[in-house]
Amino acid sequence: MVVAEPSQPIGMFDSGLGGLTVARAVIDLLPHEDLVYFGDTGRFPYGPRPPDEVRHFALEIADLLVDEGVKLIVVACNSAESAAFYRAQRHYDVPIVTVIEPGVKAALGATHNGRVGLIATEATVKSRAYDSAMRQLGPNVDLISQACPKFVDFVERGDTTSDALLATAEDYLGPLKDAGIDTLILGCTHYPLLSGVIRYVMGDEVVLVSSAEATANEVYATLLREDLLNRSDEPGAHKFISSGEEGLFSELGRRFLGPEFQTVEKRGW
Amino acid sequence: MVVAEPSQPIGMFDSGLGGLTVARAVIDLLPHEDLVYFGDTGRFPYGPRPPDEVRHFALEIADLLVDEGVKLIVVACNSAESAAFYRAQRHYDVPIVTVIEPGVKAALGATHNGRVGLIATEATVKSRAYDSAMRQLGPNVDLISQACPKFVDFVERGDTTSDALLATAEDYLGPLKDAGIDTLILGCTHYPLLSGVIRYVMGDEVVLVSSAEATANEVYATLLREDLLNRSDEPGAHKFISSGEEGLFSELGRRFLGPEFQTVEKRGW
Repeated sequence: MVVAEPSQPIGMFDSGLGGLTVARAVIDLLPHEDLVYFGDTGRFPYGPRPPDEVRHFALEIADLLVDEGVKLIVVACNSAESAAFYRAQRHYDVPIVTVIEPGVKAALGATHNGRVGLIATEATVKSRAYDSAMRQLGPNVDLISQACPKFVDFVERGDTTSDALLATAEDYLGPLKDAGIDTLILGCTHYPLLSGVIRYVMGDEVVLVSSAEATANEVYATLLREDLLNRSDEPGAHKFISSGEEGLFSELGRRFLGPEFQTVEKRGW
Repeated sequence: MVVAEPSQPIGMFDSGLGGLTVARAVIDLLPHEDLVYFGDTGRFPYGPRPPDEVRHFALEIADLLVDEGVKLIVVACNSAESAAFYRAQRHYDVPIVTVIEPGVKAALGATHNGRVGLIATEATVKSRAYDSAMRQLGPNVDLISQACPKFVDFVERGDTTSDALLATAEDYLGPLKDAGIDTLILGCTHYPLLSGVIRYVMGDEVVLVSSAEATANEVYATLLREDLLNRSDEPGAHKFISSGEEGLFSELGRRFLGPEFQTVEKRGW
């Protein structure tokens, strides 16, 4: 039972800052929606933590967002916590959108030969979160996964064009080309910033699915279905909350989200 | 013969402001490149003008950009002038990228049933610029075009989610769904801001091609091929020149490009 009102904000969280690319896609598509973004930078990264702890963190953050009065929660991270959280959906009265299902659905719409590639971080590939979503939504489709651990470093250094990046991309993507995929999920919130290199290496014959964009489209569709779209004419207000050091959040925030990214509030447990 | 240097800026122009979505895609992908954008707002719109006059304007602007020392020119508009200008490529020593060919190439890569849709303004559809690019690049593919004149007004009013917009989208896109297209080119620089509604109406089975994104990827590929990528670590500088009233340029500019959009210089003939 959804008890939310259209004027309430959208809530969004990630273990860190990568989710800001999802925030940006949502802001672009839904400029009149208010947004509360929580980055759990104080406990980042989640990768090495046991699944139970991660699940506990995710529920803790969702509670915080519900206290902030959000009408929908976006889990803007591609790793295990997303899958864990998805299963916890029944605990909340507001709809939950993760980045995984929208990306998988978009890839299933695009593939014709039933061979879909996934590039993601080591942690996401190991979590097999995309594999289980694919098993559920498209059981006849092969998912071929490739961890690209160095990509995040390139993006965080602001390098989206060097020869070293191109060589790295050729190494990572070669096996996916050889496997004959016709669709590639960019399963890490950092990767849309590398789409030039990825498109160049993969060629025009492979459809690239940005999970950030697919997620934004899913948020719109969910709000429309639940009659929760904000009908205001005013630009939405965007609030950023962090559990860690604000400096880093601000610096990377501006790079990922653009200058819209302003002040950060600190919060913790 | 390309005589340009990697440190020179990228030049870009449009008859108005729509091309700023292309500018944003290029800035996202190539954050270290300098950019000079010219919006011919003083003579906007080009639609009703005779083709010879439009061609003259386009060459005049290209000359201005060459005088600004650009290393590559992006023609960031989807209408007739783009096609006209493409044919004039031989006049310039720097590479020219238009928004039309990259969009068509990306659609040809994505389509499997050979039925591609195009949504665009009345002027773009009438110019048949996409039809001729398609005839040249993918002669066996059917292009089904639909003019969506009201979409631009919705975007310029900041309305990307209303019921009226959804009803309009259903009217425009219904015939394309009935025609069985599997790929849809968003052939107007304003349309990426409507991708939520368009995706919702078309469903997951149709691949959406954003010409802005395809163009940014083509700019990267061209600079790489010509050895013209700027290897600097510094954020690029972005200069905006307008031939018309600055107020409107600034207001719409901020909406399209985000707060990166700052001062506008006025220039005319």
